[in-house]
Amino acid sequence: MDMLWSGWGDPAAATPLPDAVTGLLRDLLGVKPRTTGPVPLDRIDVPATPLDAGTLAALRAAVGDDPAHVRTDAESRVRHTRGKSTPDLLRIRDGEVDDLPAAVVLPGGHDEVLAVLTVCAVHGIAAVPFGGGTSVVGGLAPARSGPFVALDLRRMDTLLAVDPVSRTATLQAGLRAPHAEDLLAAHGFTLGHFPQSYEWATIGGFAATRSSGQASAGYGRFDEMVLGLTLATPQGTVVTGRAPRSAAGPDLRQLLLGSEGAFGVITSVTVRVRPVPATRIYEGWRFPDFRQGAEALRRVAQDGPRPTVLRLSDETETFVGLAQPDAIGSAAPADAAGCLAVVGFEGTDDDTAHRRAVTTALLREAGGIPAGEEPGRRWAHGRYHAPYLRDALLDAGAFVETLETAAFWSRLPDLYAGVRDALTAALTEAGTPPLVMCHISHVYENGASLYFTVVSAQGDAPLAHWTRAKHAANDAILAAGGTITHHHGVGADHRDWYVREAGDLAVDALRAVKGRLDPAGVLNPGVLLPTD
Amino acid sequence: MDMLWSGWGDPAAATPLPDAVTGLLRDLLGVKPRTTGPVPLDRIDVPATPLDAGTLAALRAAVGDDPAHVRTDAESRVRHTRGKSTPDLLRIRDGEVDDLPAAVVLPGGHDEVLAVLTVCAVHGIAAVPFGGGTSVVGGLAPARSGPFVALDLRRMDTLLAVDPVSRTATLQAGLRAPHAEDLLAAHGFTLGHFPQSYEWATIGGFAATRSSGQASAGYGRFDEMVLGLTLATPQGTVVTGRAPRSAAGPDLRQLLLGSEGAFGVITSVTVRVRPVPATRIYEGWRFPDFRQGAEALRRVAQDGPRPTVLRLSDETETFVGLAQPDAIGSAAPADAAGCLAVVGFEGTDDDTAHRRAVTTALLREAGGIPAGEEPGRRWAHGRYHAPYLRDALLDAGAFVETLETAAFWSRLPDLYAGVRDALTAALTEAGTPPLVMCHISHVYENGASLYFTVVSAQGDAPLAHWTRAKHAANDAILAAGGTITHHHGVGADHRDWYVREAGDLAVDALRAVKGRLDPAGVLNPGVLLPTD
Repeated sequence: MDMLWSGWGDPAAATPLPDAVTGLLRDLLGVKPRTTGPVPLDRIDVPATPLDAGTLAALRAAVGDDPAHVRTDAESRVRHTRGKSTPDLLRIRDGEVDDLPAAVVLPGGHDEVLAVLTVCAVHGIAAVPFGGGTSVVGGLAPARSGPFVALDLRRMDTLLAVDPVSRTATLQAGLRAPHAEDLLAAHGFTLGHFPQSYEWATIGGFAATRSSGQASAGYGRFDEMVLGLTLATPQGTVVTGRAPRSAAGPDLRQLLLGSEGAFGVITSVTVRVRPVPATRIYEGWRFPDFRQGAEALRRVAQDGPRPTVLRLSDETETFVGLAQPDAIGSAAPADAAGCLAVVGFEGTDDDTAHRRAVTTALLREAGGIPAGEEPGRRWAHGRYHAPYLRDALLDAGAFVETLETAAFWSRLPDLYAGVRDALTAALTEAGTPPLVMCHISHVYENGASLYFTVVSAQGDAPLAHWTRAKHAANDAILAAGGTITHHHGVGADHRDWYVREAGDLAVDALRAVKGRLDPAGVLNPGVLLPTD
Repeated sequence: MDMLWSGWGDPAAATPLPDAVTGLLRDLLGVKPRTTGPVPLDRIDVPATPLDAGTLAALRAAVGDDPAHVRTDAESRVRHTRGKSTPDLLRIRDGEVDDLPAAVVLPGGHDEVLAVLTVCAVHGIAAVPFGGGTSVVGGLAPARSGPFVALDLRRMDTLLAVDPVSRTATLQAGLRAPHAEDLLAAHGFTLGHFPQSYEWATIGGFAATRSSGQASAGYGRFDEMVLGLTLATPQGTVVTGRAPRSAAGPDLRQLLLGSEGAFGVITSVTVRVRPVPATRIYEGWRFPDFRQGAEALRRVAQDGPRPTVLRLSDETETFVGLAQPDAIGSAAPADAAGCLAVVGFEGTDDDTAHRRAVTTALLREAGGIPAGEEPGRRWAHGRYHAPYLRDALLDAGAFVETLETAAFWSRLPDLYAGVRDALTAALTEAGTPPLVMCHISHVYENGASLYFTVVSAQGDAPLAHWTRAKHAANDAILAAGGTITHHHGVGADHRDWYVREAGDLAVDALRAVKGRLDPAGVLNPGVLLPTD
């Protein structure tokens, strides 16, 4: 199934906002209902492909000479235009397709990707790897000095190998996460990677962007699961990973993970897998405030065995009910005081019971109050629902967007305050004072992530307003010592801040890598790394 | 204190071989006692430094104009010649100092390192970072197209910062491990990094070579502890690490870790620290054979909470007593049947008790027989003793050397057999049939390391014989799907096999990084990466 071109997910799964939420938006944020919907897909003005017949023939020859594997029709190209950030959605809903690919190319395997990249390098056409198309950071919108093709990897959806002794699996890059889980489940294994984009995103995208899932406390981030990678570049193939860990030079896997298509196309990934858990328990905990809740999470991350899921909403997110998307519009305010945490355990019965007992003791000692399994159940049921909610909010005339960062524990309070203040000030100045919500959803011994959700009225110029607010938030993140992104990636949107974070010399070193692997500069130009 | 120039460690701590061992060597391997000892240090023929007065003055100016910080005397230069592999020791004992540095430079901090590197780049002098001088892979012997200076980092031995909330510490690169532990202990913390070189090696060296300690099962490898790095290069400074984990591009830390001085000089490292453990327990377990013991370790690594120490000697290493260096020469053969494992737990009382209980159940189920705390105590007491033992073996006329690798669990049996066979065949052909011992000392969910110790008679040409045997072992490692090094590093000795492992394109990408950071090519040339 294809995702809704103008929003998120399966169109049949879209749900309208509860009346309570619509009322809240109106009363609290002055949101005015929109009177117009998205431009119909068939009304979007799509120019003919700029590629000449020779180039198209060369691309077709690279992918088995099947015309279905090189698509230049309007709908295919619109569906591969940019990603799923709120600015992306606002622009495509208005029919603005400036970042339209010249063609959509569907390679069937590593060798066909190599062949396509060779054609691109020879013809000077940029290539943008396209997995689930869920980027929210402009990762699919290259700097447009000429035409580019979207390299849709959906045909590469095979489980290539399972090694039950080593507990590893080799997956092709175009596998969507649920499909990968189904294939692994047939062998008794799970990957345990469940980001919010789970239902649509792909294995290759997880690797290229250093995705982090909602069960990262227990299963780790995707970049921690990866044991090996195969990369196709215009200069040939890189294969990494002969052992879980090695002292053989820099870790090449960690050089390719997060490279966002700028170094090549990740065609397959060897990952750690784990037995499908016998038990899954998610439960709620309440804390008087975010500070105390964050301290409790730190305590668990540093002193306890790790739960599988560990997240904490701040007071605003708890009040609005976003901590349990399934409950939005139904939560009575009395039930929503303080801060809600969701703590989950997956594994064998014994191991789960032990970790739960120790975690329970730590959370109680840190001032937490058990809230039973209902909040956990609601969180689990609604865990992939937030992007649908965003569509409904946009339809209702609200602006909603998310951003995220991470830092060491000692810097987290300043980072939290700094980003909230920056967003609030910028959007208030724009005449659309926002509601800023936050949660911690990924914890480490030494720090944690912060994930912000911003809701405001759309106002008269939501794109311009948001650009200013987002830049202010980016500046605030760097000023408070955070990283510009914990799991969304750099894309084009974070690139300038990424350069400030990494420093010119380090960025130049990465550009030297790109120069070697992609001398023609055709790989996702302007994404991750500046073009010049 | 300086290390013994012609061997290992503190000369006062050297101990002769027990008579039982000398007898075993004679009877089993035909080892003939040596009649000559090392050439005295003051008899070694050391040429005057090739550096001219202007260059020396520039180097002195870079390090505070203190003559003690730029040393050209014979003893200082001999003490910085190569590292501590057995070939290194055999050569220096014979007075062969082909790899002598032109000077030993002692910078006092990051800025002085930058200044020295600038001088080196301008004057075309290679620079070799020197920490504990414990490399066993030729990491201190650059390709000599001209003179080089040893950059001894011993003056950079400060604990720069402790963040007790985030549980991180920033350590200067020249800190020796025991000193670092002392400084951290004053804050209630430990690094938990205890490689065999612990008593001499430095923080910077651990980072540059991806060191792995004997407690890696519990504390992780050094490259897993590192949260941030500062690197001095001839082109300026790189600073990394604003969060424990990030999606902001490739992980630059993992690009610099393992760079072995080829990309720059690591001047400080921010690491994860942990509370000093309340409890430490090490105990022995016996298994009928290595295969069954390895399966038990895999079971623990995949299904249990992790012990802090987990190691298993094969039948030969168990028989010889090397599993408990403190017991060598005293172990009765009856006590040494099958394979000995050492399992250790460090942490809080509760956590240690829980992990020990679960591990005990898993090991029993896997066929293990508890052997009490005595073998663990002996292992812990002798854990840093093996390099001293090597000196005594060399004195006694034996040849002894180690090498190591890692692979996924499913490949481990073939890797074990392949390396053993290669070493045995090559040294038997050379007329010095060896005893080949092995242990697993680092385990992961998906694989483990293998550490081999080879003992034979020295014969008439031990260097030439060993070179052939080592190359055969390297070939066998790659053929069996292992990595060329799990924790010793690449150096000059593994470079050619590293290139085969990583592949030409990946190596070229790393050379592009080097070209950007070190355009004059003065950083440890020929170590890690080929020069041309």
